[in-house]
Order: sequence, then C-alpha cells, then structure tokens
Amino acid sequence: MTAEKRERTIVAIGSGKGGVGKSTVSANIAIALGRLGKKVGLVDADIYGPSQPRIMGQSARPELVDEMIVPLPAHGVRMLSIGQLIEPGTAVAWRGPMTASALSNLMEGDWGDCEILIVDLPPGTGDVQMTLIQKWKPAGAVIVSTPQDLALIDAMRAIDMFRKMDVKVIGLIENMAGYACPHCGEVSDPFGSGGAQAAAGVMDIPFLGRIPLTLEIRRASDAGSPPAAGEGEEAALFRELAKKLLAQLGQGAGGLHAAHP
Amino acid sequence: MTAEKRERTIVAIGSGKGGVGKSTVSANIAIALGRLGKKVGLVDADIYGPSQPRIMGQSARPELVDEMIVPLPAHGVRMLSIGQLIEPGTAVAWRGPMTASALSNLMEGDWGDCEILIVDLPPGTGDVQMTLIQKWKPAGAVIVSTPQDLALIDAMRAIDMFRKMDVKVIGLIENMAGYACPHCGEVSDPFGSGGAQAAAGVMDIPFLGRIPLTLEIRRASDAGSPPAAGEGEEAALFRELAKKLLAQLGQGAGGLHAAHP
Repeated sequence: MTAEKRERTIVAIGSGKGGVGKSTVSANIAIALGRLGKKVGLVDADIYGPSQPRIMGQSARPELVDEMIVPLPAHGVRMLSIGQLIEPGTAVAWRGPMTASALSNLMEGDWGDCEILIVDLPPGTGDVQMTLIQKWKPAGAVIVSTPQDLALIDAMRAIDMFRKMDVKVIGLIENMAGYACPHCGEVSDPFGSGGAQAAAGVMDIPFLGRIPLTLEIRRASDAGSPPAAGEGEEAALFRELAKKLLAQLGQGAGGLHAAHP
Repeated sequence: MTAEKRERTIVAIGSGKGGVGKSTVSANIAIALGRLGKKVGLVDADIYGPSQPRIMGQSARPELVDEMIVPLPAHGVRMLSIGQLIEPGTAVAWRGPMTASALSNLMEGDWGDCEILIVDLPPGTGDVQMTLIQKWKPAGAVIVSTPQDLALIDAMRAIDMFRKMDVKVIGLIENMAGYACPHCGEVSDPFGSGGAQAAAGVMDIPFLGRIPLTLEIRRASDAGSPPAAGEGEEAALFRELAKKLLAQLGQGAGGLHAAHP
C-alpha cells in the first residue's frame, strides 16, 4: 500500500426532483457493487436532507485522522454523510459556498483503496452538483425519477445539466413504478407507469431498469437494512442495476482495478 | 388604486425533503384561499424544479411592465414561476446568489392588490429559504411531509430552521397518507401512516390535516387542473386546510384586508 492518491471512478446519482428515492437507490447500488467484488465508497452529499445514516443504519460520528474524515463501514461499503457530522433534527441552514465546502470535506475523506465512489446528490442543479462536476469530474451520472410527468420534467433538467457540463449520463432508473396492493395483490400505479422509459428514449440515454414501490423497500429504508444486503427479489434487482452500471463504465464485475490497473 | 406598496401576508410552504407534494399542496391551498374570497398570489420559488406552470396549467411567458414581472392568472389566483421564465427541459444550473436574485424578481413582481402570497419553496434549508426569510419576513410557514420516517426527519430540520429564524410555524400537513387500491378499494399505506401527526405533537406545532395519495390528485397535478378548483372531495379537503391556515394567521375567510386594514 502506498501513499499515492489512487484514481477512483466517481459516479453521481442525481435527480431533478427530491423524494424520488435517489438515496435509497444510491445505497442499494453501492451495496450491490460491493457484493460484486468492488471496493465501494458511498458519499451522502444531500446536504439539506442527508438520508444515508438512516438508510444504511450507520449514524456513528466518524473520526478525524490526519485532518481527513474516516468513512464508516456499513453493509460491506464505506460511507460518509453530512448527517453523521450534524445533530439530528437540526437545520443545515447553509448558503451555497458552505455546502460546497462540506462536499469537499466528504470527498476528501480517507477513502483508502475504494475503487468506486457513489455520490448521492441533493435534488436539483445547484452548488453541490456544480462543485462536484467541476472539482471531481465524475465518470458518469445516473438519474433517478418516478414515472410521474412532474418528476420527469425535472429529471430532464438534470440530464441537460450533466450533458452541458460534459458528464456522461449513464442512464435513467425508474423508481416507485407499480404498487402491489397488500390486500388483493393487484398492481396499480400511484405515480403512473412507463414514463421514465419513454423519457429515456426521447433523451437518447440508456434505460437501466425499474424499481417497484414496495412496502418492503420503504420499511427497509426506514429501518437501516437495505434490501440489496439481503437475498430477496429486490437484492437481485439492484444486482442487475449494478452490473449494468459497471458495463456502462466499461468495468466488469469481480476483479479489482478493472478500469484503473 | 394608489401606488403605495400594499402590506401583504406572506406564507411559505416548505418541506425538508423534495417530492412530498409541497407544490401540489401550495397550488391547491392558494386556489382554496381564492375561493374563500381572498386575493391570492402564488410564487413558485422552487428554482431547480418549478412545478407550478404544469400544476396550474399556466406556462405562458409573463410580461415585463415598468421593470416588474406581471403575474399570470390561473384558477382564480395570480402566479409567477421561474418555470415561466426559462426554457422547458433546460437546467437551471445556478449557484446560490443567482437563485436569491431570481427569488427577488418573482417576489417583486406586480402583485397588485394581492393580500396573501403563497410561496412554494424548494426543498431544504438553503439560499432561497434564507433570502425569503431575511428579506420578506413571512407571517408563517406551513410544512408538508409524507408519513415516512425519512421525510419526517427532514421536515423536523425545516421546522428547526424556521423557528431559529423567528418564523411562526403554522402547522404540518401530512401528504400521501393512505392509498386506495383502484382494484379492491382497500386502503394501504405505501409511505406509512400517522407519522406526521405524531411528529407535530413532538415538535409542538399544529397538525393541519392529512391528504391521501390518490390517482386523481396525481393525474390532476400532471394535467394542470388542480382538484381545489373543482367540486369533489379533494376540493373540500383543501378548503378546510385553507380555513385552518387563515385561522392560524388570525384572518377570517371572506372579507378583504382582514389582517391589514
């Protein structure tokens, strides 16, 4: 092990709109990548609404060693969240420059031999996004949206931003598609259906897959035990998404340093 | 009509997290207030994800008269949205100071004899929120949340910010509570249930009411015909919320200038 700065693949997970499940998708893809043999770091850059401590069940306060924050382990990945540095229930009433500086502290943590950093972005196209792109040049961005028209309009804005700033858009994931009634089992679509796939076609970006709205994913996300860490249907689903992500990045599953030998 | 600046009651509608239906609630409460006899303006300050042109079905480009933007009519209220000023599908890749300046343009529009301005805030506790509070001193803030724990954690952060900055928190509205299966009619709770009411109790703020997750509200929001403008169950629900809001502001329904004679 040398002290050299290792080259890492940075993948941004973004959305135009909040509340589309971006953080849940980020956490589960990070875990799935870890289970595919990658060394993965998860950065919760959603400054005003850091959800990862709750989703990943890891809210300990990270230590500072040699002025670098040391990420904490959770479900086979390492993670840092602004939520681990502030008091719960306390507002992060910060203007833009403060959020950019907080992002830097997280990105410059002691990520050790991590090969891939998954960055869970705040919704929108503001300071955090621009700072990440300009300072850390992500290899690509994944966009999460619900099938609802209103969410897709914002997703297109996010895609436009990444393109204008020369970040490859890896693809679009449709979340909260299809809800199975726990009483009769019939599936309906509270947020519509198929809209994201159609939008991906219009925007000419890969459609990576669809995640249903299930009570299991919501409960697991509220309880700190992400489904990707288990053995159920959802784990298989996130594993497929992770494989597609690696393929788009030109990295195979398994072997270390595939892209950065 | 004089050229004097009229004193207006400004009400901020906020949420910690995006995607909880804040814009839908803002639009429908604004319309309900209008139907209660108030002269209402609706400001879409969700800079990175302006949804009001779509929800209100009004995406015309407003005119500039005497260097003031002139709000456009929709469903009995007047509205301005950053979405009416930018191209659809185009990213608003602005850093904090730019968003504060955009907010000012909207707030300083030609609101004429409007008595109440409903301001639909972006999610979080950043530049737009702080600028609104410091420069325009809202009479109060309404917080929207889903019953999901993850959303409530962020809602508490937003409440904390308004309190620290001396803005009265008028109350909490729970959205997306209860989804009736279109097949069997049974109600289940994709996002949980009752969490927001409990949180309002803990935070010692009024609980204003609960809005179910319905296909009707989602479709109406995507189609530009807000349910509050109609005659259905949802219209009655938003009317009740609007009445509670006026009561909390110390204004009755009906008569003009009740609070600012």
